[in-house]
Amino acid sequence: MQNFIYHTPTKLIFGKDVISKLPEVMSQFGKRILLTYGGGSIKKIGLYDKVIKLLADKEIIELPDIQPNPKYDPSVLDGVRLCKEHNVDVILSVGGGSVLDCSKAIAAGAKYDGDPWDLITYKVKAQAALPIVDIITLAATGSEYDAGGVISRTETNDKTGYSDPLLYPAVSFLDPTYTFTVSKKQTAAGCADAMNHIMEQYFCEDSTLLNDGFMEAGLKSLMVNAVKCLENPEDYTARAEMMLCCTYGCNRIYSLGNSRSGWPCHGMEHALSAYYDITHGEGLAIITPRWMKHILSEKTVRRFKKYGVNVFGIDASLDDFDIAERAIKATYDFFESIGIPMHLRDVGIDESRIGEMAHHVAENEGLEEAWAPLLEKDIAEIFTESL
Amino acid sequence: MQNFIYHTPTKLIFGKDVISKLPEVMSQFGKRILLTYGGGSIKKIGLYDKVIKLLADKEIIELPDIQPNPKYDPSVLDGVRLCKEHNVDVILSVGGGSVLDCSKAIAAGAKYDGDPWDLITYKVKAQAALPIVDIITLAATGSEYDAGGVISRTETNDKTGYSDPLLYPAVSFLDPTYTFTVSKKQTAAGCADAMNHIMEQYFCEDSTLLNDGFMEAGLKSLMVNAVKCLENPEDYTARAEMMLCCTYGCNRIYSLGNSRSGWPCHGMEHALSAYYDITHGEGLAIITPRWMKHILSEKTVRRFKKYGVNVFGIDASLDDFDIAERAIKATYDFFESIGIPMHLRDVGIDESRIGEMAHHVAENEGLEEAWAPLLEKDIAEIFTESL
Repeated sequence: MQNFIYHTPTKLIFGKDVISKLPEVMSQFGKRILLTYGGGSIKKIGLYDKVIKLLADKEIIELPDIQPNPKYDPSVLDGVRLCKEHNVDVILSVGGGSVLDCSKAIAAGAKYDGDPWDLITYKVKAQAALPIVDIITLAATGSEYDAGGVISRTETNDKTGYSDPLLYPAVSFLDPTYTFTVSKKQTAAGCADAMNHIMEQYFCEDSTLLNDGFMEAGLKSLMVNAVKCLENPEDYTARAEMMLCCTYGCNRIYSLGNSRSGWPCHGMEHALSAYYDITHGEGLAIITPRWMKHILSEKTVRRFKKYGVNVFGIDASLDDFDIAERAIKATYDFFESIGIPMHLRDVGIDESRIGEMAHHVAENEGLEEAWAPLLEKDIAEIFTESL
Repeated sequence: MQNFIYHTPTKLIFGKDVISKLPEVMSQFGKRILLTYGGGSIKKIGLYDKVIKLLADKEIIELPDIQPNPKYDPSVLDGVRLCKEHNVDVILSVGGGSVLDCSKAIAAGAKYDGDPWDLITYKVKAQAALPIVDIITLAATGSEYDAGGVISRTETNDKTGYSDPLLYPAVSFLDPTYTFTVSKKQTAAGCADAMNHIMEQYFCEDSTLLNDGFMEAGLKSLMVNAVKCLENPEDYTARAEMMLCCTYGCNRIYSLGNSRSGWPCHGMEHALSAYYDITHGEGLAIITPRWMKHILSEKTVRRFKKYGVNVFGIDASLDDFDIAERAIKATYDFFESIGIPMHLRDVGIDESRIGEMAHHVAENEGLEEAWAPLLEKDIAEIFTESL
């Protein structure tokens, strides 16, 4: 086991109708609230109206229209400007992980005098941030329980992950009923995103019985419950369990003490959605089995064997490589079975920019230091295999 | 899934030599430190000297000699008096769960003008508490990651669990090397304590694939690693994994959203160690399989089956009750195999006070509302079966 420091100060308020506690929670932070949200789904499900009614005694400044793969310009910049203009006390993020990721960048930028991009790229260390409360409406990213976010800058094809302990949400509200109306496409993509978060931690040199069992349970639970959610979108129990599995995704609790993995699929997928603005979870699902096949080796086969036997119930008495290959196929088949397009061409990506994307990833994501190191040519091969 | 609120503000600093961060951590809280510890094992392993050296610039007030099953009088009362006399800023607890439980009661009592027993018995709600930092030297109770403690009052045979969100340690240092010198007896008892913490959460009506997998992994990891620790007390990896399994024990993270179980074995064991001052983990190990046998029924067999199949690898095709009985026997056999005395008579308890203890438990522990309700006569029967 590796040494670690773990500290998640976020309070989780989980379950049906927990939003009734919103006024009490928000009052701790002040009167002026920046309300951030996305394309309007929170209006369709009545959540926007509920929030406005519950916070009738507060001053609400709105930042709507935050996009998936949230953009530095205009969303982060507009949010920072609004916070400064209105002397905002706290940000309330209502939506999925993109809205929350964007809100985290705003929270730090609001307390910084320079260009917020300095913080996102770690040129300057944030010294303070506005407190963040969120109401999550999509089971996927786990942003509600971690200190990081991912921001895209269209003009440079940058999609950059950043993280700072100041950016843990103070309080995350998780009501599974808000995910009842999530489309089949987004439910499946959320499942793939969360499964990949676990796989990124699972495939490493040094893990434990405890962490492996926890992660295997997370993967199995996500598969079983995503299928239930697709069959019956209002299955509360399935939506709830899927939500909690996702919440743990990027918090490190699945793998405390594990050795470094390098999060290679995320490194590669960030280029895909930066260049083509595709759905993050779909990009991950497409890349994952090709990445697995690419890194399968004498060194890595041990972990694939464990994964295959414990997650997919493959016969442990088979040859190790046979188990690994079956496990990789089972991963692909599962993603396909829940309706995810499994080729880059299906999501509008052809070979034309593979070289450019592979170069960008190799330059920026440090994947030569991943558990199974990836050089530019490996990345290009994985992209090509994914076409 | 049940609604829940989860919030653990404790920072975990885990691994070999992490104590080097102690001066930096303590400086956040002030200059006057109440140093609490037990019978002197921290002096034997050199930890006491290290702490004193690292905190040479602080004012240290000492409260030594805190006993297992920590006592209200003198330990809690002395600690509270010292904090008030010396205007202590922070408590540093160095030792196992008993020292830390006692320190939590002191932390609350130090900020209260009346009799600290009012707080422990919830007659009065604590309004403030001193911050607590701990260095844990025994893998067992999980007190380093929860907000509760258990305090004994000898004159009334009370052993009372209390809990308050104010009492989460601010920082817990976990260096597995400090557990290298833990005796075989205490290593086994610590394992049984931690296993029982998980079982208390596992045996309930409503759990999830995620939580079950996590708990089953915890149980399997504890069994494998406790055996390794007993064979080679300086096996770092085994000590480390056992430590983390124990840390999660009472924090609720193993079972967020599960329905209430009632923690029946703890309710019963508290009487045993209150009346006879036995080792808590041994008392739990003795009671657990007898409790299991007592509550096995058409209603509960489903959970015992899952436990038997997933934790002990019992053939799932057998009859449910057959699996359950094999699982209960496997539980007993495991505890016996690691050297735990498996009869109350082995730890000096005979039938003479069973009626009195069962009455005390029935009056004070609320076990008629446990998942499998226990009335006074059930408790007496379980004690008698445990002789």
